[in-house]
Amino acid sequence: MISTDLIRELALTTPSKIVLLVMDGVGGLPDVQSGRTELETAHSPNLDRLAAEGITGVVEPVGPGISPGSGPGHLALFGYDPIACLVGRGALSALGVGFTLEREDVAARINFATVDAEGRVTDRRAGRIPTDFNRELVAELRQIRLPGVEIILETEAGHRAVVVFRAPGLDDHLTDTDPQAVGIPPHPVRPTAPAAAKTADIANAWIAQAARLLGNRLPANYVLLRGFAKHPDIPTLPEIYKLNPAAIAAYPMYRGLGQLVGMKVLQTGATFADEVQTMREHWAEHDFFFIHYKYTDSTGEDGNFPAKVAAVEEVDRLLPELLALKPDVIAVTGDHSTPSRLRGHSWHPVPFMLHSEWVINDEVDHFSERACARGQLGRFPSQEVMLHLMAHALKLQKYGA
Amino acid sequence: MISTDLIRELALTTPSKIVLLVMDGVGGLPDVQSGRTELETAHSPNLDRLAAEGITGVVEPVGPGISPGSGPGHLALFGYDPIACLVGRGALSALGVGFTLEREDVAARINFATVDAEGRVTDRRAGRIPTDFNRELVAELRQIRLPGVEIILETEAGHRAVVVFRAPGLDDHLTDTDPQAVGIPPHPVRPTAPAAAKTADIANAWIAQAARLLGNRLPANYVLLRGFAKHPDIPTLPEIYKLNPAAIAAYPMYRGLGQLVGMKVLQTGATFADEVQTMREHWAEHDFFFIHYKYTDSTGEDGNFPAKVAAVEEVDRLLPELLALKPDVIAVTGDHSTPSRLRGHSWHPVPFMLHSEWVINDEVDHFSERACARGQLGRFPSQEVMLHLMAHALKLQKYGA
Repeated sequence: MISTDLIRELALTTPSKIVLLVMDGVGGLPDVQSGRTELETAHSPNLDRLAAEGITGVVEPVGPGISPGSGPGHLALFGYDPIACLVGRGALSALGVGFTLEREDVAARINFATVDAEGRVTDRRAGRIPTDFNRELVAELRQIRLPGVEIILETEAGHRAVVVFRAPGLDDHLTDTDPQAVGIPPHPVRPTAPAAAKTADIANAWIAQAARLLGNRLPANYVLLRGFAKHPDIPTLPEIYKLNPAAIAAYPMYRGLGQLVGMKVLQTGATFADEVQTMREHWAEHDFFFIHYKYTDSTGEDGNFPAKVAAVEEVDRLLPELLALKPDVIAVTGDHSTPSRLRGHSWHPVPFMLHSEWVINDEVDHFSERACARGQLGRFPSQEVMLHLMAHALKLQKYGA
Repeated sequence: MISTDLIRELALTTPSKIVLLVMDGVGGLPDVQSGRTELETAHSPNLDRLAAEGITGVVEPVGPGISPGSGPGHLALFGYDPIACLVGRGALSALGVGFTLEREDVAARINFATVDAEGRVTDRRAGRIPTDFNRELVAELRQIRLPGVEIILETEAGHRAVVVFRAPGLDDHLTDTDPQAVGIPPHPVRPTAPAAAKTADIANAWIAQAARLLGNRLPANYVLLRGFAKHPDIPTLPEIYKLNPAAIAAYPMYRGLGQLVGMKVLQTGATFADEVQTMREHWAEHDFFFIHYKYTDSTGEDGNFPAKVAAVEEVDRLLPELLALKPDVIAVTGDHSTPSRLRGHSWHPVPFMLHSEWVINDEVDHFSERACARGQLGRFPSQEVMLHLMAHALKLQKYGA
């Protein structure tokens, strides 16, 4: 892979505009009856025309056989090594609830849990309490005060929440408290580096107060903390690529991922039509737009094949409005595959296509897993996508004389 | 990538003969009217027959999205990592004017420039003076004498020239004098390693004398020096591959690149017919021939689509004469793409084909960007080309028992 240093050296700021349209979890699997995937079933004349005029391939976000989470899937598309730049669970949870993590913050995932009279964990998920009950508990825990520390607390869903500690000099070299088994007490938070000793004390003090407040809230009478993490210290897209990028995403997790890599997060509505409208309103202000479409993933997670087909068709219907903005380069792909049949993220390579004035279009004229696998770009790492985008936007200088 | 050490261990000297035909900048882009690239437009039955009988693919010289200079483009084809083996601008300039750089020489690119009465740069290119004037200035600067140092000076073109300092113990860890802006004075040459202090003194003394001689030569009354570089310290093809290689190139830069990697540079004429004649004359003497064809690049740089098509057809016409020598292995490719529409080097993968008795020929029967992209070899780094050549010439032993 081309090094970040070399990219910094070659990158140029120009007026040309790049759009990266991420259809979350877009790749699927053939339906058992029809033998066709969700993309092969969808009526998508606009996506297909883009494929016919552009170049195609399939991307692997992390590596062969690896099913990526949303974090690594997106970081790879943004040009980062998704293994070297793993973002901690706590930080991803904070991003996921729309919290703007500052450089010094330490975030952790909370699982509400049940402990017995001797303090031994009897249910690591507190009987999977409903989200509404979670909100009540979070409201109660917001009363906790610790000297010199700001504490931010948000519900995720079910038994999961997130806590952020904000104070000067915090450090995330901390162990989880989840014992990963029942019948034994939770672990205390332990520092794994001397610099984290103070943060461990803060976390343990917070847990002790939380336990007191939750004493009579069975089955959620305890909290387990995992994945202590700070904002990852990674160079941003403006720093590496000299871009002025914007993120348009209806869901907070993806806004958070955009913010993490230095994108300006644009306020938008819940639908793809809202997102395209947002892009139109801010078209003059940026040279790179990440636009995220969630419903190809959530329908796949639900195992709802027809709904995923309909989600693809929704994007297709609105694509002409996006193309009317005349991006110099547009790529359409996903952060991973989410086949309806698997009801979850999978390792299957993800269809990719790129359209620009400067492509030698291949023979592929359909946007699908099998069609794109025959494309000129072949199978390649998602991490290379940014280089293809930059090159076709004429934003990379020649290397060497 | 297979390591140099392993290749050294496996390489065998045998009588089989390899030809690497580099059509400089051969890859192009579709013409807006016809939809066909230069290679797709050319009538090239001989290249096409070679493709039909051989295996095909597309090569990336440096990496996805990266437009290579001639130096990295060729070094990759010769099996070197083009990023680790970057050849300094000064050394490339010296090679480009046909100067044989010795191991201890330090070369630098000269830009003639204009300075005002206060010594501030007012034009970093001296109004882009004509090459004839450059030759006059170079003749004048050849009068400069420094004790214990041999100084070699050559015109490149326009405002560019090259200077080589030859003395024992020189070092190229030196900064440029070009301030990269007007209105400020040039920088002195500064050593970035203690070993380069003496060389910095020599370069600064030379610049001071040059400034005195050029005082009344407006607009070229000063010199800026950039890219101080020695001959790169890389192992040669004879050392790595146990080959006895020859370079046949009408242009000095490519002769220089061949010399750099240990090829014997054969004297030849300006046309491809001359080059093929040279190969014929020296056929018995070498087991590897690098033959370089310039005009697919220069016509592309000129934005002259029909002339680039004609250049391809010229190679095609003479190819039977080359094939009549019966090389055991011949590969045809380029060091990079130079689409007429872009008028410069581009990042597009370069068509590649290899012909030998030992290939499983694929279905591709045309030598072009799109046809080769469907080939058996797929998209691969140029750096692997030497391994394919060696293997098909049966010049690599089995690895392991």
